Parts: sequence; C-alpha cells; structure tokens
Amino acid sequence: MSDTTLIDIKEEILSENRELANQLRSELESRRVFLVNLMSSPGSGKTSLILQTLSHLQPSYRMAVIEGDVDSAVDAERVTKEGFPAIQLKTGGSCHLTAAMVEKGLQALPLDSLDLLFVENIGNLICPVSSDTGANLNVAMTSVPEGDDKPLKYPRIFQASDAFLVNKTDVADHFDFDVAEFRRRVRRLNRDAPVFEVSCKTGQGIVEWCAWLRGRIEGHG
Amino acid sequence: MSDTTLIDIKEEILSENRELANQLRSELESRRVFLVNLMSSPGSGKTSLILQTLSHLQPSYRMAVIEGDVDSAVDAERVTKEGFPAIQLKTGGSCHLTAAMVEKGLQALPLDSLDLLFVENIGNLICPVSSDTGANLNVAMTSVPEGDDKPLKYPRIFQASDAFLVNKTDVADHFDFDVAEFRRRVRRLNRDAPVFEVSCKTGQGIVEWCAWLRGRIEGHG
Repeated sequence: MSDTTLIDIKEEILSENRELANQLRSELESRRVFLVNLMSSPGSGKTSLILQTLSHLQPSYRMAVIEGDVDSAVDAERVTKEGFPAIQLKTGGSCHLTAAMVEKGLQALPLDSLDLLFVENIGNLICPVSSDTGANLNVAMTSVPEGDDKPLKYPRIFQASDAFLVNKTDVADHFDFDVAEFRRRVRRLNRDAPVFEVSCKTGQGIVEWCAWLRGRIEGHG
Repeated sequence: MSDTTLIDIKEEILSENRELANQLRSELESRRVFLVNLMSSPGSGKTSLILQTLSHLQPSYRMAVIEGDVDSAVDAERVTKEGFPAIQLKTGGSCHLTAAMVEKGLQALPLDSLDLLFVENIGNLICPVSSDTGANLNVAMTSVPEGDDKPLKYPRIFQASDAFLVNKTDVADHFDFDVAEFRRRVRRLNRDAPVFEVSCKTGQGIVEWCAWLRGRIEGHG
C-alpha cells in the first residue's frame, strides 16, 4: 500500500467532514446559535475557562456546552453542576472531534432555546486543527506551566485559530514563561488574532476575553 | 467510502509499523542499546526529565536523544547544549512518532558507541500510544498543573505504559492535584507500573526514578 492511497482517503474524509461542518454552521445560523470550538493541550484549563465565561456572560445569553473526551464524563458533570446544559461526547480512541460527533451533541440539545454553544475539543494541539467542527470561532488556549515555546512546536493551531488564551497567569512567578516572547511567536504565525492572558482561578483577564467574545457574537448576528 | 475501509488501512499501517518496530528492537538488542520512549502532554517537561536523567546516569552509560516535534529544533538544541548527542525529527503534521521516523534517527546516531537512547515523542496523550517506536520501555509523564484526572480521560496511555512520572511537584502547593487519588486511578488501569513523583526543577525524585530505570536496563542486558 502506498502513502498516496492513505493521503487520498484522508483528504476524502476531511472533505466529507468540511461539508457536514458547513451544513451544521448553516443550520446553527438559521437558529441564531453561535458556536465556539475551544482547543488546548490536556490540562490547560478548558473546562475552567468555559465555566468562567458562562458565569460572566449570563444572563445575556442562553448557553450550553458539548464536552469531548476520549473517556469519562467528569467535564460535563462539572458544567451541569454549575447549572448549564452539557453533553459529554466520548470518542473512544479518537484524538479530535469531528463534525459528525458535534452533530450528535447538537441533536441532544434544545437549540431553539440557546444563543451560545461551546465545544470543548479533545486535549490535543495537533489533530483537532484539521477537523472543522462547524464552529463560528476557533479558540486555542495554552497555559503558563506548559512553557512559551508552543507556537514553535505546534505552528498550525496558531495559524488556524481566531483567538488565543494563556491561562494560569496566577502562577507566573513559579515558571519561566516569557509573555512578550510568546506574543512575538504567535504574531509571526498569525497577524490578527488577539492573545488574552487569563487566570481561570482568580478571574484575571476574563472581563477582557468576554468583552471580545461578545463583540464577535454581536458582530456575527 | 465506508468506515471499514479506513479501519483496514489503519490496521495495515499499524501492522507494518509493528513489524519495523520489532526489527529495530532486534537490531538495537544486538548492539546492546536500550531504547526508552517518553510520552506526555505538550509542556509536561519531557526534555527536562531527559536532561535530569542523562545528567544523573552519566558516566555509567553512553547516551543520546532522538527528539520528536511537529516543528522546531529547540529541544534537540537544549540537549546538545548539555553535551549529549541529539537528533531532531520534525514530523510536519504528524501527531506521533512511527518506527520509520525513529529508524531515521537511529541511522544518524553512532549506535556502536551508545548504551542508552531516549526517544522524546510528540506532545500528545492519545496518538503515540498506538504506534510502537521499537522501544524497550514506554514511559508516560504528566505534571501537577495538568490535574489528577488524566487517567480518567486518557486511559489507553495508562494501560499501555511501563512507568509513570508526575512532574512539577515543586508547585504542588499552587494546584489541587490529589496524588493519592491519581495513584488509585492509575492502579485501576495498570496493576504493576510504578509511579514516580519528580520535580525536574529541584531534582526531587530523580534518584528513585533513575534507580528504577537502571534496574530495568541491567535486568534487560
């Protein structure tokens, strides 16, 4: 079997996925639901960011979350406990969410009574980038303990996302994370996307991030 | 195109990879080189652990490192700066190292003057697990800031590895990482593999980890 065969099949799958993602986007637009796809390494704090954001943006929007994980339902349980609707998708072995998986999540949610929906992707800086989820906005997060070299090692996610967050700024004194250097590295890959420094523990930076997100939602509608 | 076609091709690729990995293992054994494959999330501290280990185990062994990243050569540069031979593999888009990639690294190293070789896999808790690198030992690392729930979310890497490290114990006071709970979660998935708590910053736990690793190398030879 040649490599070419694999690449063709991969391209076919990606193209089918893009088509379904475009359908989901149209469907969500007709129902006036804005979809945000959040990506990061394992343990950067995606669920914490989503909870901070939901808490900050209510009651302006009616919101829900689709949680993606290889296994377990701990993230959806955290969201539900805070009073927001959440669907847990378990991917088994899959390293990223596909549009077909997101579609299953959408079918389980009351879309007509929602304005804003978060998809928390699988913890992975590589695979989710190639797979359109149907989102209106792709957001990538990293965190201070992971180091400031992620744009060098995982350029594609920094090229392809609409906004970036650096989480866990509350522990900045304990790690060598050069924020200015990180920003320069991001800027070399992405001319426009804003970078927000946040702490989901203390709430630092959440106001700025939510103001920007609100602008994108309102600008879209 | 049905899903079945994809699964067959994936299985064929994995089977070809296993065959090459077995060949590499035989070849390395005949040259008495012990190969360790290190896996973790992005930014858990793989390169720091390798540097601590090399520093601790010299001059008992002659050692080198094969660094895997989607892009950049920053990790290999760090290792070379400390005086050890290092090869950087850039995978382009690939989310894990294959035996064929490791083979390319081996071809660039003076195997007859080496005893111990580390492969630093791509920062990813999912994809590297399925792809045998030819290693004698598979080691998975996580870190305190990532949280103690990784065994729940990424069970396969905890089932498939021979040892586990929890890095960044020096910042344990700043995070809610329940080590006892983490150990219980690991144990449910893996009956035998030891768990080492380390700080690659302070050196805590490195002696214990290296003593165990030395035992595995000597036991193997």
